[in-house]
Amino acid sequence: MDRVKESESEPPASSSSSSAAGKLEEEVGRVMDQARELHESGASLLWKISNEEQSLRQKAISLESSIRRVRSSINSLISKKLLDPKCARKLEEDLQRASSILTDGEAAAFLPAEAQGRFLRMFLGPINVRASRKEVQLKVKEEYNSYRDRTAFLFLLFPLTLLILKSWIWEGCLPAFPVQLYEAWLLFLYTGLAMRENILRANGSDIRPWWIYHHYCAMLMALVSLTWEIKRQPNCAQKQRGVELFLQWAMMQGVAMLLQNRYQRQRLYTRIALGKANRMDVVWGETSGVDGQLWVLCPILFAMQGFEAYVGLLLLKTAFVGVVTEWQVICCGILLVLMAVGNFINTIQTLVTKSRFKAKMKRSKSKPELD
Amino acid sequence: MDRVKESESEPPASSSSSSAAGKLEEEVGRVMDQARELHESGASLLWKISNEEQSLRQKAISLESSIRRVRSSINSLISKKLLDPKCARKLEEDLQRASSILTDGEAAAFLPAEAQGRFLRMFLGPINVRASRKEVQLKVKEEYNSYRDRTAFLFLLFPLTLLILKSWIWEGCLPAFPVQLYEAWLLFLYTGLAMRENILRANGSDIRPWWIYHHYCAMLMALVSLTWEIKRQPNCAQKQRGVELFLQWAMMQGVAMLLQNRYQRQRLYTRIALGKANRMDVVWGETSGVDGQLWVLCPILFAMQGFEAYVGLLLLKTAFVGVVTEWQVICCGILLVLMAVGNFINTIQTLVTKSRFKAKMKRSKSKPELD
Repeated sequence: MDRVKESESEPPASSSSSSAAGKLEEEVGRVMDQARELHESGASLLWKISNEEQSLRQKAISLESSIRRVRSSINSLISKKLLDPKCARKLEEDLQRASSILTDGEAAAFLPAEAQGRFLRMFLGPINVRASRKEVQLKVKEEYNSYRDRTAFLFLLFPLTLLILKSWIWEGCLPAFPVQLYEAWLLFLYTGLAMRENILRANGSDIRPWWIYHHYCAMLMALVSLTWEIKRQPNCAQKQRGVELFLQWAMMQGVAMLLQNRYQRQRLYTRIALGKANRMDVVWGETSGVDGQLWVLCPILFAMQGFEAYVGLLLLKTAFVGVVTEWQVICCGILLVLMAVGNFINTIQTLVTKSRFKAKMKRSKSKPELD
Repeated sequence: MDRVKESESEPPASSSSSSAAGKLEEEVGRVMDQARELHESGASLLWKISNEEQSLRQKAISLESSIRRVRSSINSLISKKLLDPKCARKLEEDLQRASSILTDGEAAAFLPAEAQGRFLRMFLGPINVRASRKEVQLKVKEEYNSYRDRTAFLFLLFPLTLLILKSWIWEGCLPAFPVQLYEAWLLFLYTGLAMRENILRANGSDIRPWWIYHHYCAMLMALVSLTWEIKRQPNCAQKQRGVELFLQWAMMQGVAMLLQNRYQRQRLYTRIALGKANRMDVVWGETSGVDGQLWVLCPILFAMQGFEAYVGLLLLKTAFVGVVTEWQVICCGILLVLMAVGNFINTIQTLVTKSRFKAKMKRSKSKPELD
């Protein structure tokens, strides 16, 4: 604008030059002042935030330890029968509510973060993946759930397509490329799941460590299977028996994942509504349907674990009998058996915890009437 | 403590029970109040922070656009010769300083973040990887540099060991497992580098997009090479020619990386000291030594790019002549040629930018004397 005016009035070149320079100098000076001001107010805001956060952090830590202390004195009074069961239940409920407010409310951002673990550091370096706002944490979790939904669908579709094409078009003999594409996808998928679960853990989710280890095993298996040569004709039906079993197991896994995702989400919403669950909890354990649904899921889960172990043992057998003697076969066999056993133990543990909790609830409910 | 006292004085059981319950009730009430209070002050702090951040963010954006506007009017006055060169240089320097304060000071946290890109979202979900404190950003960058140092060393050592063992112990024929282990390590390494560089970019580093694309290509190549069957006897010397060439190229790459890392770090420190570089900049381009060092690096870099293209073309030739007809050979060949060409173009571009910048600097320095 200024320049246009100047050229319209056409003053002598030298004067125009010096006046333009003067104006620019002024403007540059103003910009410089603004930059300094902004730098200072930014620094002071960050300093203020860090101070106030520090004080809230201390309060949150001390409150957390108070809750622990009160809970243990309630328990000791209960065990000494010095406390009326009705009263004990009420106190426990109140304490639970206080604890929910602390871990699920806005104050949760000020509780000390979980250590981020080697896995994330290995890939990402020392960056912080913890969100300070609850709404962001919830968005992360929501996205994790929808990611699982999408992948469960592909988990079913991908091996199904391979198996159908195998018998329809490929005449009983899987070509290497599509299988390797599938294995690469598995590697990508499990890496993504392991990262997201580590991030959820850093954001305060109670996900069981086993499910993360399980995904490390699955990553390793996908990597190993990539180096595994897919045998061709002749006799590929016999040589590819392992791959075929694996694909069948993956399909079952896909169905189970879809069922689980649906039930777990419903159950989590119920528990959140009842105030029994933290909104960041992930019930990625395989044993967490609503009671009625649990008896639908459990047989499927145990069957899947059994089938997983069976595929593993079959691979080991082919390796030791000598049909296929590659190290990949032994490695995949061991990993599958390991994952099946781990899944089984964790499922049982969750069921035991659940039934104990239920028994305790029942006892505390029935006692007042007995008294 | 309270409990111990009670049992010492041994009051009647019922009274002790009720007094203990009363005390506990009180305590639970206190805990509950504290939790509510903490929740409220947490929420109010987060709200306050978000408001103040919002206002600083607007100021930072408007300052950024002022700087851009003033810079363009300086340039237009220069091109119309309405500005004394000495004065122009001073104004440009001042403006540069203001811009450094904005992008490198504490106010930088309030500039709008770079979009995080699909790659990070694919693996991590919608988590924010931008650090708000400058010191954390610098720590991330420092860690990235030391990661590169460590990996450059392994980059040299790993293929060297393979090649030495090949001629000493394995009698000219590489076994599959160590090579696949190396390929898996490459996949992990390039994934980590690509993630860290994306994170650096989100934190305001000026890293050239090509180097990130380059790592995507390298990831893909490592993945493809994992599915590539390592041929055995007989004639493995001929069949493994591609792998051998690749290992030799990787060794050269390791040496070049070590040299680059050393020179770039020195140069970056110099530039930061001179106020010419943002502390978040990464000179991961391959053409950024101090001038004297540039003439040492450049021949190495061009030789490496030439060798990379040569290995790629050799792979393509073996595929089309028909010695090895796997698709992996063609794919790796194309990727290597692509990376070589991309690296070459980017190196040339950086050199051109550099020499233009230098010419401009020289012109603006010599002009006052001519006038």
